[in-house]
Order: sequence, then structure tokens, then C-alpha cells
Amino acid sequence: MPIIVQKYGGSSVADTEKIKNVAKRVVKTKEKGYQMVVVVSAIGDTTDHLLKMAYEISPSPPERELDMLLATGEQVSISLLSMAIQSLGYGAISLTGPQVGILTDASYTRAKIIDIKSSRILEELKKGNIVIIAGFQGVTVDNDITTLGRGGSDTTAVALAAKLGAEVCEIYTDVEGVFTADPRIVPNARLLPAISYDEMLEMAATGAKVLQLRSVEYGKNYGVKIRVRSSFTESEGTLVMEESEMMEKPVISGVTFDVGEAKITIRDVPDRPGIAAKVFRSLADANINVDMIIQNISEKGLTDISFTVSKGDLKKTKEVIEQVVNELGARTFEADENIAKVSLVGAGMKTHPGVAADMFAALAEKKINIEMISTSSIKISCVIKAERVNEAIQAIHDKFNLAKDKILEER
Amino acid sequence: MPIIVQKYGGSSVADTEKIKNVAKRVVKTKEKGYQMVVVVSAIGDTTDHLLKMAYEISPSPPERELDMLLATGEQVSISLLSMAIQSLGYGAISLTGPQVGILTDASYTRAKIIDIKSSRILEELKKGNIVIIAGFQGVTVDNDITTLGRGGSDTTAVALAAKLGAEVCEIYTDVEGVFTADPRIVPNARLLPAISYDEMLEMAATGAKVLQLRSVEYGKNYGVKIRVRSSFTESEGTLVMEESEMMEKPVISGVTFDVGEAKITIRDVPDRPGIAAKVFRSLADANINVDMIIQNISEKGLTDISFTVSKGDLKKTKEVIEQVVNELGARTFEADENIAKVSLVGAGMKTHPGVAADMFAALAEKKINIEMISTSSIKISCVIKAERVNEAIQAIHDKFNLAKDKILEER
Repeated sequence: MPIIVQKYGGSSVADTEKIKNVAKRVVKTKEKGYQMVVVVSAIGDTTDHLLKMAYEISPSPPERELDMLLATGEQVSISLLSMAIQSLGYGAISLTGPQVGILTDASYTRAKIIDIKSSRILEELKKGNIVIIAGFQGVTVDNDITTLGRGGSDTTAVALAAKLGAEVCEIYTDVEGVFTADPRIVPNARLLPAISYDEMLEMAATGAKVLQLRSVEYGKNYGVKIRVRSSFTESEGTLVMEESEMMEKPVISGVTFDVGEAKITIRDVPDRPGIAAKVFRSLADANINVDMIIQNISEKGLTDISFTVSKGDLKKTKEVIEQVVNELGARTFEADENIAKVSLVGAGMKTHPGVAADMFAALAEKKINIEMISTSSIKISCVIKAERVNEAIQAIHDKFNLAKDKILEER
Repeated sequence: MPIIVQKYGGSSVADTEKIKNVAKRVVKTKEKGYQMVVVVSAIGDTTDHLLKMAYEISPSPPERELDMLLATGEQVSISLLSMAIQSLGYGAISLTGPQVGILTDASYTRAKIIDIKSSRILEELKKGNIVIIAGFQGVTVDNDITTLGRGGSDTTAVALAAKLGAEVCEIYTDVEGVFTADPRIVPNARLLPAISYDEMLEMAATGAKVLQLRSVEYGKNYGVKIRVRSSFTESEGTLVMEESEMMEKPVISGVTFDVGEAKITIRDVPDRPGIAAKVFRSLADANINVDMIIQNISEKGLTDISFTVSKGDLKKTKEVIEQVVNELGARTFEADENIAKVSLVGAGMKTHPGVAADMFAALAEKKINIEMISTSSIKISCVIKAERVNEAIQAIHDKFNLAKDKILEER
């Protein structure tokens, strides 16, 4: 029998009634003739509640203990879901990350999966059990509990689907799938029936919250078909797959945004080799992820370096850069939290010249100033002032007619 | 350096402020030159909250999943306590029961400890860490999570103290120690500075809530000195130890009570060999613990059998006995939940005749009817109507002058 991995997020298991509904959905899929592996996140706001306690105790709780704490959230939901499924008359068993043997490195709070042991899962599937697995968590070789970081349950699910050779990995969430833009901002945004891994990666990297970036990478690397769908409707959602397997290929997939970043500019840096390396090595050593990087043209041997980091890392970033500015003999640095990144993603732009120009024109028509630009082969991102973000998204969405019938690439 | 095991109950870690206080107490003991192992229960009413969710999902949640669920409670408190200790500048590490290797049988919700692996604990102690261990939980050889039943954290602590050869196992709770009677009922009850294992066992078995029965058995079997004390005061509490090591031996240790039992009476059972065996084998098979048993004198070849069980087991007991009554051809059975068991415990009664007579007289003077009597060498228990229980305890406490200076056994 083929295996399906389903993953239910925190909003899908927000209370005991919702957990019972998830149980019914799981059983319905099982009845279609599948072996079922189900990955669950923590109930609703459990994680926030736990974090609140941790910060009441310590302003900087040790990360190993944070993981010990946070891992309980998923353990609660797997046991409750297993109870709910069993009360429908089906065999079920819950397993924590350590029990499965989801081996990770020891980077607490952001651990990476090294390997997954499948023996216990296969043994339980063989007994006819529906196997409920705690998302987001793993275990080091020293038997210490780790977590994969926020959204890590998606990664758990896709990694399991890869290991088990599942037919598909279904990610259930509170939205219907992947849209051409956030429907809360663009009311006429359209649900995408399919999207390629690469586009989904760019969408996730540029702010689409629907799938966690690493889970898409995992899916791409191991060829796991991922279906994003709502746990509250019967919609088929969006299938994330190989571009080559897609029947229709729209030029543009969607417009995304991210208001979670801040921009740092270092002024008057001596323009000599090794400077950029020095700046970004210092940030990397402090475990700070840098997103966009721009270095302006040098003038009189001095240059400006701008980059963006997540607002959550801003405090740490300032500390690091303060130091770096002194060491480099730069003049000063500035931090701007009042920014938004708006991105346009589409595999078709590889073969359609002029997409960037159209995007910039859409912004220009609304008199929205572009502060930074960064591109990849299938994405264009612009940093603008935060307060113009909704307007910008709608303008770009309109410019490319994304609400209308799909614009297909000539094949 | 000698090892001390400390155990803090749910009320001692009821909120983050209390957890910080526990951290200070732990560190204070460490500063006296001890290696510290700390066992913690779940925060305040966590367990009740988790059980509520489980019963919302299923009227009879599968026990394996209940244990998976309940074990999260202690995991939360160990991580928070470890954070609190580390924020005081001391090394600390939290470990779950499975991480330590607290091996149990697979009797979910009431598992028994088979063995404890000490290697990880000793390794962490060697690093200078305070080791925080989740009480109440263990793991089977198949790597499934178990719990030891309510109060199981005491057992975890004493078992650890035995395994590690600790100097003493301190059980911190919300009362000052073991009293001659419950101070909420008998205001002039007196704190016992010491009590023997056997007396403590009888006290626990007959309703004193301060220490869990199995933990005392464990202490007795392995000669672990147990000190019961309050986490909110500096009182020395009560030391539970070998009778032979006690300096002073009071005749009577205390009066206890239990309103958590129900009485079942089977009427007109044919009085022939094997009947009692049949009744109590059926109950044992259903995993029901029977406390007192009385079989009245036979009349016309028919007899009555009465016994008490915990009220929590009453529903299951009725089902079993319904069946048994039919099989045995007994007339009928009755269940009475409106009972209390009052017990008098004291090692001195072994050598002091007349203790039982005095106890019965105390009840008779208050015109309290005795429905069942059961005795051991150091205990007398009487079942009476539940509504008379407070009166009965006070009367017996007064009769034996327990509030006054200790009555010592002649040596």
C-alpha cells in the first residue's frame, strides 16, 4: 500500500474539537487505501505560552533547555490526535522525534535533520497503525532533544515523506494553498493549482508564509511532491512539484512581501579587498542570516554597504556592526526598520525579458521609491518604505494581470 | 562530594516565581558542598489540564497515549528549573526519564521502575552540573514513555537516591512534614521530627498524602533516608528512617484518614472454599486494588463478603462484581461511597496492649459506629460514615494525647 504523509499545523489542531476533525480527515484518507503517517505541530498558541514562561525566568534562556521546553508542545498534540483516531476505531500510535529517531545536529532551536530512522515507523505501519509523529523536533547522537526552528514541522513531514518514499506529502494549514498574492491584501488574488519547487522556494524566501523554506528545499532535493491545502475545506490546494512535470507554466507565480526585515547601511567603508568578507563573516559567526546585500559604487576610495537582516536579529546585528565599523575605520552605520520587501516570482521570467522593467514601472506609477533591488533568475525583489507595501503589492499584481486567467508561457 | 537528591512537588513549582525560589534553594544546598540531583513534578495543575483535554477527546483514552501526554508536564518544569538555575550562574542540565534511562515495565499510567541507568547523571555531575530530572516518568525497553502514577515523582526521587547512594532524599512539599494528624482537621496536631519506614508506610497506605507509598517502600528496601519538608519554610521537617536508628520512639505516630474509598458488600455468597479467591482474582485481573477485606461468619451456608476499593475504581469494580455475583449464585451486592477510613499508626502498639481498645472507646464515646475493622502489627483502621470523619480523627487524637509532649516507648 502506498504511503501518504500528512502534516497538520497549529491552527488545524487548535482545540480538542479541531483535533477530532483532523482525526476524521486522517481516517478518510486511510480508507482510500493508504498507509498513513501524520505529522502534527503544537496546539495553537502553546509555543508562545511556553516561551512566555521561559522569558519570565531568564532574559536569555539557554537554547538546549528551550528545546527541551518547546518539544513538549508537539508531544501533547500527537498523543491527543492518537486518542482521537483510536476513538474512531482505528489503530494509531504517537511517536516523538527522539522515539522515531529523527537525528539532527546539535544546533539547538534551529537544528538540521541528519538522518531519519524508519524502522519503528515501518513496524507500526505493518501492524496497521496510523503513525502520528511530533513535528519540529529531533534528537542528537548524545540523546539530547532539539527543535528545527519555527515552521520545522513542515520539514519533518517532507523529510519523512522522502525517507518513506511517500506518494505525496500533504501540508494542511489554515489557507487554501499558494496564492498569486496574500488574499488579505489583494482580494482578487488567485489560488495556484501548481507551482515548481524553485518558484515555491523563492516565494517562501521572499515572505510567503504558507510553506517553510527548508521543507521545500527538502522536497526539491528528494523529489517529494508537496500538496498545500486547507484543513477546513475540501479544496485540492496547490501542488509543489518539478517544473518539468507541470502541465501549465504561468510566466509569473505571485507577488510576495516581507515586513520582517531591517536594513543596515555602513557608511564610508574603505574600498579594499576583503572588507565585505570581514563584515559578513562577523555576522555569520554571530549566526545572523543576511538576506539582501548591496554595495554601492566606490567614490574617493570609500563605499557604502547595505544589507537586510530579520528584525529579530537586529539587536545582535547592531552589536556586531558597531564593532566592525570601528575595526574597519568606517564612518558610521544606520539601521532602518521601516522597510518592506516586495518580490515577484515566476519561472517564466527566465525567458520573458522585460518583467523587471514592468515591475519597476508598476511601482513608479504609484510613486513608490525603490531603495534596494535584488534579483535571481526567477525572482525580483525591491525594498520600499513599509507603509507603501499593500499599495505596491496590488499595483504589481494588477500590472501582471495575475487575478485573470493564467498567463501561460509559450511552450 | 556527597550527593543529595531533592524533589519538588507541583505546588513548589506552581509558577515561574516559585520556580525561581526553588532554584535558589537548590543552589544553597549545592553551596554547602553537595552534588545535586533535583527531581521535579509538573507545574501546579498541569496534569489536570492535560487530563481534561484527553477526556474531551475520548471517554477512555488509551493509556499509552495518556502517558505520552502526561509526561510533557514534567518536561516543562525541568527545562524551566534548569533555566532558572543557570540564570543564577550555576551549571545545570535537565533530563527526561527516558534520557536518564529510568527503565520501567509497560504498565502504562502505573508503571514500576525496573532499573535506573546512572551513567548520564554521573557524567553531568562530574562536569559540575546540577542535574534536573523529570519525576513520574520512565521508558520501556521498547522506548515507549511510561508514567508511574500520581505521586510517582516521590518514587523517582527515592529510587534515584538509592541508585546514586545519596546521603539523603529530600522531598519538598507544601506542608512542613509528617504530622500526628492532618493539621487542617486537628489544629493542635504535632510535627513528627522522625518516623520509621514501617510507620510511614502505614500512614501513607491509610491516607496520609505527604509521601507516596511506593517511594517509602523503595526507601525502606534500599535504606534511603527520606526527609519530608516544606519548600516555603526553613523547618527541618520529618526524617523517615530505620526504626532501629531512631533516638526516640513514640507509641503512636499519628491518625490518618481516607475518604477516597468505597465499600462493596456481596450478600449471601455460598460459603465454600475458593469463593473469596474467585472474587478477588477477578478484581485483580481487572487491575483493581482492594484495600480492606472482611468476610462475616457464615449462616445457613451463606456468607457476606465486604471490601473497599478506591472510588476511582468503583465503576469498573461494579462491572466485575455484577458478573461475579451471577457466576457465584450470590444474592446481590451493594456499594456504599459514603464511608471514611480512620487509622491509628504507631510502632509502639506492637508492645502496648490496649491501643485498639482505646481507639474503639474514643469512637464509642462520640457514638460513632464502626462498620469495618482491619489491623496490622502497627496499625488499626476503622471504616465509619464519611460525615463523622473529622470528629473521629479529633477524638482519637485527643484520646492518645498526640498534641502533647511525645509519649515515648519504654526502651
